[in-house]
Amino acid sequence: MKKFRAAIIGYGNIGKHVVEALEAAPDFEIAGVVRRNPNDIPEELKAYQVTDRIQNLENVDVAILATPTRKVESYAKEILAMGIHTVDSFDIHGQIVDLRRSLDEVAKTHGTVAVISAGWDPGSDSIVRAMLEAIAPKGITYTNFGPGMSMGHTVAVKAIEGVKAALSMTIPLGTGVHRRMVYIEVEEGYDFNQVAAAIKADDYFAHDETHVIQVESVDALKDMGHGVNLVRKGVSGKTQNQLFEFDMKINNPALTAQVLVAVARASFKQQPGAYTMIELPVIDMLFGDRESLIRRLV
Amino acid sequence: MKKFRAAIIGYGNIGKHVVEALEAAPDFEIAGVVRRNPNDIPEELKAYQVTDRIQNLENVDVAILATPTRKVESYAKEILAMGIHTVDSFDIHGQIVDLRRSLDEVAKTHGTVAVISAGWDPGSDSIVRAMLEAIAPKGITYTNFGPGMSMGHTVAVKAIEGVKAALSMTIPLGTGVHRRMVYIEVEEGYDFNQVAAAIKADDYFAHDETHVIQVESVDALKDMGHGVNLVRKGVSGKTQNQLFEFDMKINNPALTAQVLVAVARASFKQQPGAYTMIELPVIDMLFGDRESLIRRLV
Repeated sequence: MKKFRAAIIGYGNIGKHVVEALEAAPDFEIAGVVRRNPNDIPEELKAYQVTDRIQNLENVDVAILATPTRKVESYAKEILAMGIHTVDSFDIHGQIVDLRRSLDEVAKTHGTVAVISAGWDPGSDSIVRAMLEAIAPKGITYTNFGPGMSMGHTVAVKAIEGVKAALSMTIPLGTGVHRRMVYIEVEEGYDFNQVAAAIKADDYFAHDETHVIQVESVDALKDMGHGVNLVRKGVSGKTQNQLFEFDMKINNPALTAQVLVAVARASFKQQPGAYTMIELPVIDMLFGDRESLIRRLV
Repeated sequence: MKKFRAAIIGYGNIGKHVVEALEAAPDFEIAGVVRRNPNDIPEELKAYQVTDRIQNLENVDVAILATPTRKVESYAKEILAMGIHTVDSFDIHGQIVDLRRSLDEVAKTHGTVAVISAGWDPGSDSIVRAMLEAIAPKGITYTNFGPGMSMGHTVAVKAIEGVKAALSMTIPLGTGVHRRMVYIEVEEGYDFNQVAAAIKADDYFAHDETHVIQVESVDALKDMGHGVNLVRKGVSGKTQNQLFEFDMKINNPALTAQVLVAVARASFKQQPGAYTMIELPVIDMLFGDRESLIRRLV
């Protein structure tokens, strides 16, 4: 069996888990890892080519972008134009349509496929939200996140003067309302109460119930677990009160990485262009014979 | 806007809810209802053409099969050959692949689309099962049904001598194990204990924990509510213990009907052939502008 050759772009938390997901996938092999410092080769990458340019890797079929979200567009455009598919987990909800348009044009010009915003939210949660709206078209869906670390909020706290280290946890209160539990180490010479007040006044936190707690070691609190509770109460036809709930408790980067590998597989079944996950048949994300999958899963 | 013209084939519980779902859908109109006795026209069908042959209806784009599951194949073949799409909720899990092959050939020959096994299980549950396997490829999924009425088991009870009326409820015990609660009225001249023993010995019940209860009126117990609790614990990449759960409490025929309308919509976006729901992009099941759907749901 010819295996798909995947390049991993970026080697942070997600990139590390992408290596594991590719190693576990029967239909992929790793063409190499692209990172800023190609001389930094940890034990688990010893078997692979590590480089700072994707151009140095051979016969790449698909590039899995494990870069910061804001770098996705430029990397994807460059790589799609090389005739290589891309997948990413771009997660700025308000800019997904723009990214899709931009990559769609490049992909169609070069006969390649981009699957965008493929993580768990946006991503697999989006499939659940879309499906629930199809089967109960009227109603309200609430996506409740956590308990888990919010990257965006953590970065926002770290930017505040007097914060030495920070962790912002998202706690779900239901109906899409969240509490922010912010754990910080305070820089010497700063007053905790003043720093806490500054955090609560920040636009990231001003609209939510926010608690700031001083700790000795933020690092000791970190875990990569996260969760979702997605709820819809809606109407099928003219029948009210149809109740749906999707829950998960997961390792965040491991799930994101696995989703990226699943959509990388699906990319080879699509016509040129850019796609979000709700535009892909779910079966295309699975390894195996089509009829066997239908027999087992439908 | 040109609306899709749908014919409803069969007018039992599902058919009635299909009328409601089509009336609630902004992009469909009802071309007519096909039933054995076309002179039996209840109040809610007064506005529509009721006939015993689909050939009597004009400009039908899609036929929604609300027939007994065993009649799906012959109806679908006939209608696909007329150049009309079909959708069904064929629910014999072991025969889905065969039905798909059979309808795929007819559909491709006549340039039409069949969406098969589109209810909630098989159907929307299948999408959840497939998606969970894509994002956590190793592990076990359990589908727990109920509490709710099992049509198949109820029919099996009714076939047993001495049973005047019956209702078999499916009770989920977890890990895919189910209890059967069977409520019966006994024919005069029969002994309840003997009838109960015959039910428990029937192959439909012999392998499950089964309780048989005599009641005065089975009809007084009937409600169309049903439920699912679908659980997966699996591995993403090499990370264990990823936990997922999908729950619903729903009106059974209303949900089935809504799913049928959603896949009828999707049928117009597919190439000729036969498809199960896991082979359709979820977005195709939704009404609305593509970019607006992506902006709102992804």
